[in-house]
Amino acid sequence: MFGEDDGMLTVDGVRIDEIVQKTGTPVYVTSYGKLMENLRAYKSAFPNQRLLYAVKANYNLAILKIIQKEGFGADVFSMGELYLALLAGFKPESILFNGNSKSDEEILAGIRAGVKFSVDSLDELYTISDMAIKEGKEVEIAFRVNPDVSPETHPKIATGLKKSKFGIPWEQTVEAYRIAYELPNVIPKGIHCHIGSQILSASPFIEAINRLFDVSAEIQKIGIELEFMDIGGGLGIDYEGTGSLSKEDFSKEILSVFEKRRDEINPELELWLEPGRSIVGDTTVLITRVNSVKRAYKNFVAVDAGFNTLIRPAMYNAYHRVSVANKLNRKNEEVYTIAGPICESGDILAEDRKLPVVEKGDLIAVYDAGAYGFVMSSQYNGRPRCAEVLAKDGEFYIIREREDIADIVGKQKIPELLF
Amino acid sequence: MFGEDDGMLTVDGVRIDEIVQKTGTPVYVTSYGKLMENLRAYKSAFPNQRLLYAVKANYNLAILKIIQKEGFGADVFSMGELYLALLAGFKPESILFNGNSKSDEEILAGIRAGVKFSVDSLDELYTISDMAIKEGKEVEIAFRVNPDVSPETHPKIATGLKKSKFGIPWEQTVEAYRIAYELPNVIPKGIHCHIGSQILSASPFIEAINRLFDVSAEIQKIGIELEFMDIGGGLGIDYEGTGSLSKEDFSKEILSVFEKRRDEINPELELWLEPGRSIVGDTTVLITRVNSVKRAYKNFVAVDAGFNTLIRPAMYNAYHRVSVANKLNRKNEEVYTIAGPICESGDILAEDRKLPVVEKGDLIAVYDAGAYGFVMSSQYNGRPRCAEVLAKDGEFYIIREREDIADIVGKQKIPELLF
Ligand SMILES: Cc1ncc(COP(=O)(O)O)c(C=O)c1O
Ligand SMILES: Cc1ncc(COP(=O)(O)O)c(C=O)c1O
Repeated sequence: MFGEDDGMLTVDGVRIDEIVQKTGTPVYVTSYGKLMENLRAYKSAFPNQRLLYAVKANYNLAILKIIQKEGFGADVFSMGELYLALLAGFKPESILFNGNSKSDEEILAGIRAGVKFSVDSLDELYTISDMAIKEGKEVEIAFRVNPDVSPETHPKIATGLKKSKFGIPWEQTVEAYRIAYELPNVIPKGIHCHIGSQILSASPFIEAINRLFDVSAEIQKIGIELEFMDIGGGLGIDYEGTGSLSKEDFSKEILSVFEKRRDEINPELELWLEPGRSIVGDTTVLITRVNSVKRAYKNFVAVDAGFNTLIRPAMYNAYHRVSVANKLNRKNEEVYTIAGPICESGDILAEDRKLPVVEKGDLIAVYDAGAYGFVMSSQYNGRPRCAEVLAKDGEFYIIREREDIADIVGKQKIPELLF
Repeated sequence: MFGEDDGMLTVDGVRIDEIVQKTGTPVYVTSYGKLMENLRAYKSAFPNQRLLYAVKANYNLAILKIIQKEGFGADVFSMGELYLALLAGFKPESILFNGNSKSDEEILAGIRAGVKFSVDSLDELYTISDMAIKEGKEVEIAFRVNPDVSPETHPKIATGLKKSKFGIPWEQTVEAYRIAYELPNVIPKGIHCHIGSQILSASPFIEAINRLFDVSAEIQKIGIELEFMDIGGGLGIDYEGTGSLSKEDFSKEILSVFEKRRDEINPELELWLEPGRSIVGDTTVLITRVNSVKRAYKNFVAVDAGFNTLIRPAMYNAYHRVSVANKLNRKNEEVYTIAGPICESGDILAEDRKLPVVEKGDLIAVYDAGAYGFVMSSQYNGRPRCAEVLAKDGEFYIIREREDIADIVGKQKIPELLF
C-alpha cells in the first residue's frame, strides 16, 4: 500500500529513499499489500470461475510466486513464459499456452510439459496433432476465435477486431472445430477469445460472450462437448485517478449474462478469465531520479528512466500519474514535463504536470507501472535494465538485481580477424 | 553485399540457410562488405571533416571495432555506450559524450575517461564544472543547442523543434556560453545540434548550419574561439527502395554552405557529423522463420520475430522491405501481412506485400534492419533476444550469441519468505 512518511513516499511501510539507496535508480517497487488486495478482489468477484494470470503483464518470478500461491492459473504466450510459470510453481494443468505464432520448439515444449493450448491457426493445429502423436500424448485445446468486437482502447491493443492478426476468423470457427474433432491426439475442450486491453466497460465483454455462445451452439452440434469459455483479459485500471470499473461490478455484469446462457451449452461450462493489467498494474511505482531541470519552451525535468525503462507513454501515448516522491507534503506550484534520457523526442514520461518545485536529485514516482513495465524494457542507448523490489510489512526485498555494463556487453563477441 | 544462390539470399557470399542452421531464428545478419562501402563513402564525401559514429544506432562490438578501425570517432549517449566505445578501441579524444539527461555517475565516468561533452542544460554544466574541479581535470565542451528547425520525418524522431526536450533554447544560447566561459575547468570549444533522424533532404541541415553560424558570431564576441561545429546525424536511408540522397550529394550541398561561411568564425573551424543510421542501416537483414500461414481477413504470415526483435514498424509505423529469403527466384503471387509473435495487434512487421506463395518453415528477410534494430530489442513476452552475425568474404561469425531461458530469468531472485 502506498503512503507517506514526512513527505516521503512509502510502499508497504518502506520509505522510497531507503530503497533507492540500496538499488540506485531507476527502480520498480511493488507493494505486496496491493497485489494481495487485487488477487483477493478477483477471487471474491469470481469465486467459481477459473482465473489465469496473464504472465506477459509482469513475469517477475517473485510476483508469479505470490499469484500462484493464491491459487491462480497462468496464461503464457511463449516458451519463455511457460518456463517462468513452471519455475514459479504453476501446475501444468493450470496453464494455457496462448500465442498467434508458436514455433515447433515451443509447441513441443508445451506438449511435453502437459499444458493446454489455445490454437490460433489450422497450421498450428496440424503441428500440434503431429507432434502429440509422436510424443504419445493427448492435448486439450481451445481455438482462439476472433469475435470482431471493437472495444474503446488504443488501436495497438485492440485485439478482437476483424482485421487483427489474432484468432480463427469468425466464419471459419465451426469448420476449425470440425477439423480438430477429427484429428488424432487433439481434444477440443474450450473456446477462447481476447478482445483487447485497458477496457473500461463491461459491454464489449458481454458482446464477446454472447458471440461465443452463439458459435458454441454450432460447435456442440459437431459432437464436441465444450467445458470452458475463456474470455481473455483486458479489464482496465484507473491510470487517470478518475475512477474505473471495479472487479466486483465487472463480475456482476458479465456473470449475469454468462449464467443466463450457460445451460444452452453445458450446465457445467466454466468461465475462464486471463487478467494481467488489472492484477499487477496498480501494485507498482517506478522511481526515477532527476538529473537536471531546464527552463526551455517547457520546464523539462530530465530523469534517469526513459522509454528504455517504461515504454507505455512513448509507444501508446499512455498516461501515468506522477509525483515528486520526496516532496509529497509540498504544494503543487509549477508545470513540468518529465523527459527520459533517450535520444528521441518521443521519450517523454509525463507532459505538463503541476508539481512542487523540482530540483536536481529529487525522486519522481511514476504510478501504475506494474503491468507492461519492466517486461517491455530494453537496453536501448546502452542503458542497463533497472532493479525490481518487493515491499512487504515494512521490509523490502530485491527481486531483480540492477544490470551493469557487463550485461550490456552480454553475449557479444568480437571475431579475432577484426583485431 | 546481398546476393542470391539458387533462390537463397546470400550475404557476403554466405547462404542464409547455413547461418540459421547454426544460430536459429530470428537472427540479424550484417554484411561486412556493405558496411565498408558505407564507411568509405562517408570518408570520401567528407575527407576533411570529423565523422563520429552514433553508437546508439548499433552498438555491437564487432561493428564498433570495424568502424573504429576505419578512423571514425564516436558519439555516445550514456555511460554504457561510452564503455562499449572504449572497449571497441575508440580513443577518448575521439569521443563526444552526448545526452539530455546524464547522471552524476555518468558525468564522472566521462570526465575520468577524458572525453568531450555535449552539454544539454545549465544544471549539467555546473555539475561538470564541479566534478572537473574535484578531479583536477579540464573538460572540453560544446552546448547542444536547439535551432528550431523542422525536418520532414516522424515526429518522435524530429529532435530540433523548439518544443523538443533537447538542447539549450535558442534565445538562451549566448548566455549559456557566457556562463561556461567564466566557469572553472570547462572549456567551450564547439557548438552542437542534431535536428532529427531519417531526413531525406539537405535543406534542413543547411538551415541548421546557417543558424549555428549566426549564433556562433555572437558567441565569438564573448571571447570564446569555437573550434568545431557538430551538426549531428540524421541522413536518411532508402527504406522504400525508391532512391535517396547519396552521401556524396549530401556532402556537396552542406559543405558548400559551410565553407562559404566558415571564415566568419574561424578559418580552421571543423565540421563534425554524427551519422548512425546511414552507416549501419542498410548493412543488415533480419531473418525470421514462418511458424504458420493463416487465411483470415488478410493472409497473415506469423513469424518468430516481432516488435520484441525489431520495434520500428510497431513504434514508428516504419516501412521495411521484405522478401521470402529462400524463394528469391519465385514470382510474387499473393499479398501477405507479416505478423510477429507478440500479444498485441500492433505487432506487424510488414503489411500487404506481394510475395511468392509463403509456407510454414520459409525464411522472411527484413531489409535495412541494421540501425535501431537489435539495440531496441527487448525480452517482451518472455522471448530471448536473438543472435547477431557478421558475414565477410564467404565466411560468417557469430558476433552475439542468442539468449536462452536463463537470460529471461536473468537477475531475478525469489525472496525466501515467499516459499
Ligand atoms: C491472450 C491474452 N490474454 C490476456 C491478456 C492480458 O490482458 P490484460 O493485461 O489487459 O488483462 C492478453 C494481453 O495482451 C492477451 O493477449
Ligand atoms: C545527438 C545525436 N546524434 C546523432 C544521432 C544519429 O542519428 P542518425 O542515426 O539519424 O544518423 C542521434 C540519433 O538519435 C542523436 O540523438
